[in-house]
Amino acid sequence: VQRIAVLTSGGDSPGMNAAIRAVVRKAIFHGLEVIGIQRGYSGFIDADMGPMNLSSVADIIHRGGTILRTARSEEFKTPQGRAKAHENVLRFGIQGLVVIGGDGSFRGANVFHEEYGLPVAGVPGTIDNDIAGTDYSIGFDTAVNTVVEAINKIRDTATSHERTFILEVMGRESGHIALTAGLAGGAESILIPELDNNINEVCEKLYRGYKRGKLHSIIIVAEGAASGLEIGKKLHEMTGLETKVTILGHLQRGGTPTAFDRILASRMGATAVEMLMSGNAKHMVGIAGGKIVSESLADTFKCKNAIDLELYKLAGILSI
Amino acid sequence: VQRIAVLTSGGDSPGMNAAIRAVVRKAIFHGLEVIGIQRGYSGFIDADMGPMNLSSVADIIHRGGTILRTARSEEFKTPQGRAKAHENVLRFGIQGLVVIGGDGSFRGANVFHEEYGLPVAGVPGTIDNDIAGTDYSIGFDTAVNTVVEAINKIRDTATSHERTFILEVMGRESGHIALTAGLAGGAESILIPELDNNINEVCEKLYRGYKRGKLHSIIIVAEGAASGLEIGKKLHEMTGLETKVTILGHLQRGGTPTAFDRILASRMGATAVEMLMSGNAKHMVGIAGGKIVSESLADTFKCKNAIDLELYKLAGILSI
Amino acid sequence: VQRIAVLTSGGDSPGMNAAIRAVVRKAIFHGLEVIGIQRGYSGFIDADMGPMNLSSVADIIHRGGTILRTARSEEFKTPQGRAKAHENVLRFGIQGLVVIGGDGSFRGANVFHEEYGLPVAGVPGTIDNDIAGTDYSIGFDTAVNTVVEAINKIRDTATSHERTFILEVMGRESGHIALTAGLAGGAESILIPELDNNINEVCEKLYRGYKRGKLHSIIIVAEGAASGLEIGKKLHEMTGLETKVTILGHLQRGGTPTAFDRILASRMGATAVEMLMSGNAKHMVGIAGGKIVSESLADTFKCKNAIDLELYKLAGILSI
Amino acid sequence: VQRIAVLTSGGDSPGMNAAIRAVVRKAIFHGLEVIGIQRGYSGFIDADMGPMNLSSVADIIHRGGTILRTARSEEFKTPQGRAKAHENVLRFGIQGLVVIGGDGSFRGANVFHEEYGLPVAGVPGTIDNDIAGTDYSIGFDTAVNTVVEAINKIRDTATSHERTFILEVMGRESGHIALTAGLAGGAESILIPELDNNINEVCEKLYRGYKRGKLHSIIIVAEGAASGLEIGKKLHEMTGLETKVTILGHLQRGGTPTAFDRILASRMGATAVEMLMSGNAKHMVGIAGGKIVSESLADTFKCKNAIDLELYKLAGILSI
Repeated sequence: VQRIAVLTSGGDSPGMNAAIRAVVRKAIFHGLEVIGIQRGYSGFIDADMGPMNLSSVADIIHRGGTILRTARSEEFKTPQGRAKAHENVLRFGIQGLVVIGGDGSFRGANVFHEEYGLPVAGVPGTIDNDIAGTDYSIGFDTAVNTVVEAINKIRDTATSHERTFILEVMGRESGHIALTAGLAGGAESILIPELDNNINEVCEKLYRGYKRGKLHSIIIVAEGAASGLEIGKKLHEMTGLETKVTILGHLQRGGTPTAFDRILASRMGATAVEMLMSGNAKHMVGIAGGKIVSESLADTFKCKNAIDLELYKLAGILSI
Repeated sequence: VQRIAVLTSGGDSPGMNAAIRAVVRKAIFHGLEVIGIQRGYSGFIDADMGPMNLSSVADIIHRGGTILRTARSEEFKTPQGRAKAHENVLRFGIQGLVVIGGDGSFRGANVFHEEYGLPVAGVPGTIDNDIAGTDYSIGFDTAVNTVVEAINKIRDTATSHERTFILEVMGRESGHIALTAGLAGGAESILIPELDNNINEVCEKLYRGYKRGKLHSIIIVAEGAASGLEIGKKLHEMTGLETKVTILGHLQRGGTPTAFDRILASRMGATAVEMLMSGNAKHMVGIAGGKIVSESLADTFKCKNAIDLELYKLAGILSI
Repeated sequence: VQRIAVLTSGGDSPGMNAAIRAVVRKAIFHGLEVIGIQRGYSGFIDADMGPMNLSSVADIIHRGGTILRTARSEEFKTPQGRAKAHENVLRFGIQGLVVIGGDGSFRGANVFHEEYGLPVAGVPGTIDNDIAGTDYSIGFDTAVNTVVEAINKIRDTATSHERTFILEVMGRESGHIALTAGLAGGAESILIPELDNNINEVCEKLYRGYKRGKLHSIIIVAEGAASGLEIGKKLHEMTGLETKVTILGHLQRGGTPTAFDRILASRMGATAVEMLMSGNAKHMVGIAGGKIVSESLADTFKCKNAIDLELYKLAGILSI
Repeated sequence: VQRIAVLTSGGDSPGMNAAIRAVVRKAIFHGLEVIGIQRGYSGFIDADMGPMNLSSVADIIHRGGTILRTARSEEFKTPQGRAKAHENVLRFGIQGLVVIGGDGSFRGANVFHEEYGLPVAGVPGTIDNDIAGTDYSIGFDTAVNTVVEAINKIRDTATSHERTFILEVMGRESGHIALTAGLAGGAESILIPELDNNINEVCEKLYRGYKRGKLHSIIIVAEGAASGLEIGKKLHEMTGLETKVTILGHLQRGGTPTAFDRILASRMGATAVEMLMSGNAKHMVGIAGGKIVSESLADTFKCKNAIDLELYKLAGILSI
């Protein structure tokens, strides 16, 4: 292997830049050349790419977002689109590809590998943390801390007043952010898509606390479990308590990455280069039990990374 | 004057604790006694109050919210409610009252003074910054910085994708937060209740930038100007561009106060005590041109602190 | 077991409050009573302790420091001191003790258990992360993020000027903070007590980068490896480059705990209670490979948690 | 005026990028061309400069440091150096110059104007806030907040232990940062170069608090008043209390600028362009009483912006 390419795909996540930096510097350290592809598979198809050097990735480790930008490409899902991308593989002399993104991105990489044989290495980057085969994805820790900071601020005003606050966080199919941030933030209730979320139970708990003298409650809702605004409305109707709603939205995808995400991204990016150098042709880098592992790319999008029900129970016990 | 009381009323704002600390320590420095009243006028009516000393306000200068808690009291709007409060004035020997809050709170203080003659000193505390007679209210600077941090995070993901982001901020009748944070955050458009906000113009500007190659736009909407969700929907329908909405809600009321708000609160709280000591019986402490001023309480709720249209124009010029 | 006690000992670390909260609420959930001991073993000896309830630990999960305060007790190292503490065990009916602290604290707990048979459960809390038997101690992640934020700020001014910056961080015998923060912050050189730190090598690397056009360098020094001020002086003498020194000191011990530290503290605090309930009489809760484990208390202070040399190598490769 | 240039000079400060952005966009809005000069007067002499457009300043409003970089130029202090710079003025057709920096930079600009007649507009950018003719300089508010955040963290650990903490902050000749941050942070003592700082008084205050039961003290020292390490040593010798020292150093120059600094920089940068357009040939933009003012450049470096002794007294009263 003499020349590899790197792209970021799907939703961006904090730490992707640290991963790009690791890929580029590790590759150059071993004498490889690196091509940076802009806008994910769209730039792969459109030949929007160019060489990267040590300075290309200077002073980016602490920046949110991705300097290579990202996009969702419908065209890459078609054989014609992938054929165009393959022309660029030949034209630019690309012998390996690092894809930093989520399960949808890995699905595309896997198909491309099967069709054209290009070795691909996946690096899991998504705040949702829902990719199978890795305990953590790049960006999750930062997103959770962003939500926890929001809870901190809400807590200030919550303890001054006597009200119920609802915080809607990201997670269409996965409650990782809601559960982890809810436990870390000391939320009274956490609603996640993986579980039947019984509004009546939430209301009862709210009432129990209220009668015991608990002056305020914070409820975390994953967007996939319910709409924050609707929950606020229902709770108000059922309990008469005043409810206030915050919807964090895409700001959860931004921010300076935490140390955890930068270390994870640095280790994973470097390992992806090693995988391509050692002929490991279609795997994702993962982390399991604190150790870097290699997972067959095809196994990463068959199922979702499950939430830890023990944490859910613990959150219930600690917020009584 | 030998004994004064202090309360926080209305919506809480970051820096109220610094103001309470200043009132208590300044008063004790001059040999006065201080009574802390809980939950605003509600606690004033219910006799939910007690003596405060130097240690009562130790290690609170950096905390959001208010250790005296706050509430909106319907009862204090009635003569009966105020009569009960007056009984507590006699019972606790209160000779002066510092009210930290917004214009509604000052209205109540003014009526109470007119009815019972108790000297009152107002300290403006509201993130909305809409109180006439002062350039700045305690909490405004912190709230603006909270919004600006949110814009920073959105900017990360905005530059990675090519999208339009809408951020709904507080301000039912006032665009101070939206305008100041929008200018500081480099937002492309700012919608405030003080101005006719023409959606068509916002769309046109969006399109112009888009055609020029501007890849992302951030639009700040004060809640009083429009609903963020509706603006997002309309813009999507009119331009076809993908729009993402964040609603910050009450987290804008929390957070560790900035240095600016703590200094402001410290100066204002200390001045309020001086006003009560010097027989200044129904005024609010304000800041104008960087100097502490005294404003007749009655003049603070007749109109609103106007926004600076020069800043609005400047925001337009700098976001071209 | 019907009544347990909890104390924090040694240097404080962010997340200790989350651990106290978990101990108290988990215990109450299982019907136990909890005694909170102030100022570590000093309060244990002086009977500075009292009952805690659900509200004692409300709204503390996000606070740095420890509400139980901490101290280093010379008296507890003497048989006389421990005898006094044992009197309090009998007087207050304490049947188990949770000690949140570092290896010195665990040594004391172990001796006390051997002498008086009181079941003890250790919870590792120290920013140094040097306790054997656990991958992570409570507070380490927060301290690392504090250092990384400092590096971020230094990086701003470093890229504007052309200078060398030296950042001295905590770690008398252990380079965990320096290494992890240095890797996460993209530092050019990292000096830790575990390795021979050759100043000449640091200077050479500095010169190499300088000749290649690298305009600035950031060097992280663990206090146990060298004095930041001395390193700055030496580097200036050897290279003629201007050097600027920051000494973070004890602010690394403060700050709102990160989500990681709060989750860790919550899990460990709850497990410590389970250990006491199940008759596990002299163990520390640890985390290994992401799973909660139980380690003999005596094994936690015989050696230090070793640093990961792979991370050190990676930091070298990525900062070329 | 058709073409103006802009440079940043001296020590960098957070918000300089927002000022550059304002200069560039305001100028382009009025149809002017803008040349960006790298590395202050060094680049002015070396012709290290080039045209800037709307995109040159996109997404920089929130970044610390300066994209134009900065330097201190000895050569520009010589007639030969300035003659070279003048050649570049002719070569690049520069008809006006915006200098963002401190008093030393304005001195140079003033001499250059007197020698060659080039209209110059100064924009005050320094965290020290010591420039006469303006209440605030760009970067001061951010630096103060950085120090206040450090105090917050120290406060966590200070309340857990019983110790004295010393924080050395920037300010060789000026105590603005120390005084403002000390008041905002609730520091027990503040040592600034403008006042005789009597160590005995500091010690006495420390002792008084200690006897009253005050468990911890935080002392802020401006580097120009004393060395933090020496103060720590002396205090320990005099009182026997344990003292811990933090030296913040250059990290005070970095960080994302606060909203206040961005607004200030935006207003000042835009006004500097207006000044050059209106033939105002040798003035600095200042802010006085919240209003933008124009100050003769020659008056900005004759004396220093004085500290507010009322704030110093207030800090003493509120930290009893």
